[in-house]
Amino acid sequence: MLTRVKSAVAGFMGGIMAGGSSGGGGNTGSELPLKFPYMRPQFLGLSPDEIECSADHIARPILILKETRRLPWATGYAEVINAGKSALNEDQACCEVVVARRRPMSYCPPSTPSKTPTAKRRNSLPNGEGLGLRMDPCKLGEDGEGLVFHYWALFDGHAGSGAAVVASRLLQHHIACQLQAVIEILRNLSSLPPTVLGEDPDNNPYLQGNTQGPHRALTRAASLRGATGAPGSPCSTPPPPRFFTEKKVQHESLVIGAIENAFKEMDAQIEKEKQVYNVTGGCTALTVVYLLGKLYVGNAGDSRAIIIRNNEIIPMSTEFTPESERQRLQFLGYMQPHLLGNEFTHLEFPRRVQRKEVGKRMLYRDFTMNGWAYKTIEDEDLKFPLIYGEGKKARVLATIGVTRGLGDHDLKVHDSNIYIKPFLSCCPEVKVYNLMQYEHGADDVLVMGTDGLWDVLSNQEVAEAVTTFLANCDPDDLHRYTMAAQDLVMRARGVLRDRGWRITNERLGSGDDISVFIIPLMYGNRQP
Amino acid sequence: MLTRVKSAVAGFMGGIMAGGSSGGGGNTGSELPLKFPYMRPQFLGLSPDEIECSADHIARPILILKETRRLPWATGYAEVINAGKSALNEDQACCEVVVARRRPMSYCPPSTPSKTPTAKRRNSLPNGEGLGLRMDPCKLGEDGEGLVFHYWALFDGHAGSGAAVVASRLLQHHIACQLQAVIEILRNLSSLPPTVLGEDPDNNPYLQGNTQGPHRALTRAASLRGATGAPGSPCSTPPPPRFFTEKKVQHESLVIGAIENAFKEMDAQIEKEKQVYNVTGGCTALTVVYLLGKLYVGNAGDSRAIIIRNNEIIPMSTEFTPESERQRLQFLGYMQPHLLGNEFTHLEFPRRVQRKEVGKRMLYRDFTMNGWAYKTIEDEDLKFPLIYGEGKKARVLATIGVTRGLGDHDLKVHDSNIYIKPFLSCCPEVKVYNLMQYEHGADDVLVMGTDGLWDVLSNQEVAEAVTTFLANCDPDDLHRYTMAAQDLVMRARGVLRDRGWRITNERLGSGDDISVFIIPLMYGNRQP
Repeated sequence: MLTRVKSAVAGFMGGIMAGGSSGGGGNTGSELPLKFPYMRPQFLGLSPDEIECSADHIARPILILKETRRLPWATGYAEVINAGKSALNEDQACCEVVVARRRPMSYCPPSTPSKTPTAKRRNSLPNGEGLGLRMDPCKLGEDGEGLVFHYWALFDGHAGSGAAVVASRLLQHHIACQLQAVIEILRNLSSLPPTVLGEDPDNNPYLQGNTQGPHRALTRAASLRGATGAPGSPCSTPPPPRFFTEKKVQHESLVIGAIENAFKEMDAQIEKEKQVYNVTGGCTALTVVYLLGKLYVGNAGDSRAIIIRNNEIIPMSTEFTPESERQRLQFLGYMQPHLLGNEFTHLEFPRRVQRKEVGKRMLYRDFTMNGWAYKTIEDEDLKFPLIYGEGKKARVLATIGVTRGLGDHDLKVHDSNIYIKPFLSCCPEVKVYNLMQYEHGADDVLVMGTDGLWDVLSNQEVAEAVTTFLANCDPDDLHRYTMAAQDLVMRARGVLRDRGWRITNERLGSGDDISVFIIPLMYGNRQP
Repeated sequence: MLTRVKSAVAGFMGGIMAGGSSGGGGNTGSELPLKFPYMRPQFLGLSPDEIECSADHIARPILILKETRRLPWATGYAEVINAGKSALNEDQACCEVVVARRRPMSYCPPSTPSKTPTAKRRNSLPNGEGLGLRMDPCKLGEDGEGLVFHYWALFDGHAGSGAAVVASRLLQHHIACQLQAVIEILRNLSSLPPTVLGEDPDNNPYLQGNTQGPHRALTRAASLRGATGAPGSPCSTPPPPRFFTEKKVQHESLVIGAIENAFKEMDAQIEKEKQVYNVTGGCTALTVVYLLGKLYVGNAGDSRAIIIRNNEIIPMSTEFTPESERQRLQFLGYMQPHLLGNEFTHLEFPRRVQRKEVGKRMLYRDFTMNGWAYKTIEDEDLKFPLIYGEGKKARVLATIGVTRGLGDHDLKVHDSNIYIKPFLSCCPEVKVYNLMQYEHGADDVLVMGTDGLWDVLSNQEVAEAVTTFLANCDPDDLHRYTMAAQDLVMRARGVLRDRGWRITNERLGSGDDISVFIIPLMYGNRQP
């Protein structure tokens, strides 16, 4: 159901939306074609006309799922556009059931660990077709040949919507890609993942316990390895006894590693395809993967996920901002001062230093410090601080307020040749929640939201709102999570008054794009 | 009371203890003199004969305070030597009441933020006399001219006892040094610390509220600044209005910054004085500073502090080990590969890679990852991993099992020219506990212990042991915390059986040096 509020200004979007090169861009004059046109989440099933209506910065209609559509697990979703800070809603979302199938490995490049800053990539890249197959929701469960995972994701774009659109279409395929390489190992829970693929477990002194399990896994894995074109044949003679221990790696760690590397590959694909497509800006990424009984919440940016279980709040992500990542960034600036372009200092000061203050003693913080101390100001300190500002106004290199995400490869400090990207990380933090360890009721949910939600509502406020809302719904109404998501977005947006958008207690509502998933957890227990 | 167990082997210590150059050393042939002779904590007041007896690796007598001696707040202390891993007990401890006085600044070098790896230092360094005055415990309270703080510290040495001895004698003076520069500001709680010293607050648009307070503080601070020899005179014309905001820094942050910089200065002093003294090895450092109603727990290493309050455990430190700091170290190795000397790889593998495994796929972790994935092994991966081993056996560069602390400037990878120090940090993490926020009973304590304690006893076991022990003591017996510390050390050391030192449930006792402070918290409330 789309809240159909047509506004007098809706028509102005036509020009922006129709164009080829500007549709996914916004603020670039690139002549390159778009990889994907600008859109709203595919699962909303909006017509071009409806998309235009949704971009009304005055009415700010809240979009929810049409009643004819249903997401896996009866997931609720709602979104609203910003109050005018960008022409388009730069948030994007995705929700799918994906099958990672065993396939010829040549399709899926193995993630390359960092040896040199720019890793070579020879293989083809996902384009949204073929690899991570979207599954018929009626045929949920473990696929005979592959591995089924549920996937929810939010992307919050900035400086253009291109990166967010591309990531919302492709990141799940990169995750499928990475999981593909370990399908057999993940399915075989009776033994730990082998350290080396293709070794004969019967002759491997490291592998203990059930040798039947690993043998099977390794035999299949060996064929995977062979398919990658790796030289050598499976080891047939037993290795000599070794006198050092071997770290045991759990299955869970392979899924975490797969998600981490999928983010890295997604970012690399954006970088590469910018040569042939117009992919503007960058985006945060918050993903939830449900696989084999566990939720894996991966976060790169300032969106947030919390679990609300029996009125208890369990944070499932932490935000990556100039303030939370200050020490990492300062350390990098200290180690690689050329990245600061002789215009920035890695030291932090409470405000800009003025020339007349040279020689005086001023508060500062170095990368090793959480506290503050005084130092005598030198000419060097007149440079602009690498990290500057507080809270939502904190910026890296005076430019960007979020320190992890995808894209931004071209982003530079205004009027300079200083790139921001070296300071940004595309690596998510992945937290795991074992759904099988708890019984979940109909009101136990995972809430994912972009910063538009969390800027104005605390975890506690969100939990209270959701819990109260769901308690007043029919527990058997599958639409209740959608309505709860709508309610949350409404509470964060507020209502338009004389002096702007207002929420409860006359506080300012969020003028940002707001997107929310509410995922009921009880369905996870029912579908192992 | 020293447990007077003389052992037949006690005499062998004589040779080690008596020598000038080897006393604080142990494993070096340096011809340089010692800065301080090897010793046990000064507050134990041991005679040379008693020190010899304490070093009995067979009997492992537990040393506690003599009944004639008392530490501030009736703090309990106990220690025991290792079971033979080093000739001397390489733990050191310190407990003092220190006065930081306003003094000529030339005595105390301002901490130099990192601009170049080796910062210039022109000023004289603390030698244990003069600056941080030890106070007569009978005259506790705020000193008219200075600032009184209580100080407890544990140092766990390795590769020689020199660094631990020096740090146990001098670190408190470095803290006093750093606090000295902010005495007036810390005393004036009615206004926030000024961003710049020496500005006229009446003309400073940043300073809000009570201008009387800051004026006074700044006037005094200006004289401090003048004393440092900084150029320029206090600003007499009002600065132009500025249109950016200023970060507000709390008093607490100045104390944290002072402790952080004191650790840095202590480490720099050790580096500098190694040119004229024999200062062997390195050490962890765990300090507790009580100042103006708050406890500041600074930790660089793998010792640990917990607060036990009303049977609840509040962790007051986290350990810094190759595993907990893996990503920081791998990142550094990746950014500065020359530090790995072409012998180590920044990647982590579950075990050593063998040449015949080149071309196979093996589990690995990069600095961006918490999970694991498979990569095709290349020749490069045959290098030894920067981080290797698990738990207590984890090592950086195959050498050291702790990643923060003081000293170790000369430490190299065996039989190579690769220095370990660049990977070590001397920076503590400082956690704050506001004593004034709670009422503390006689059984509420802070427990500090070196890793010898925590390797064999969990937080929970320690809390239960201490709580049970104290509950059975006379609450008015000031000796009860000493007895509780002795009990803890006994539980961690165990008793000597046929097959080594054993604790409850036949578990192995700690063969390491063990040192424990038990600090009752109720005294903090009584002495603001």
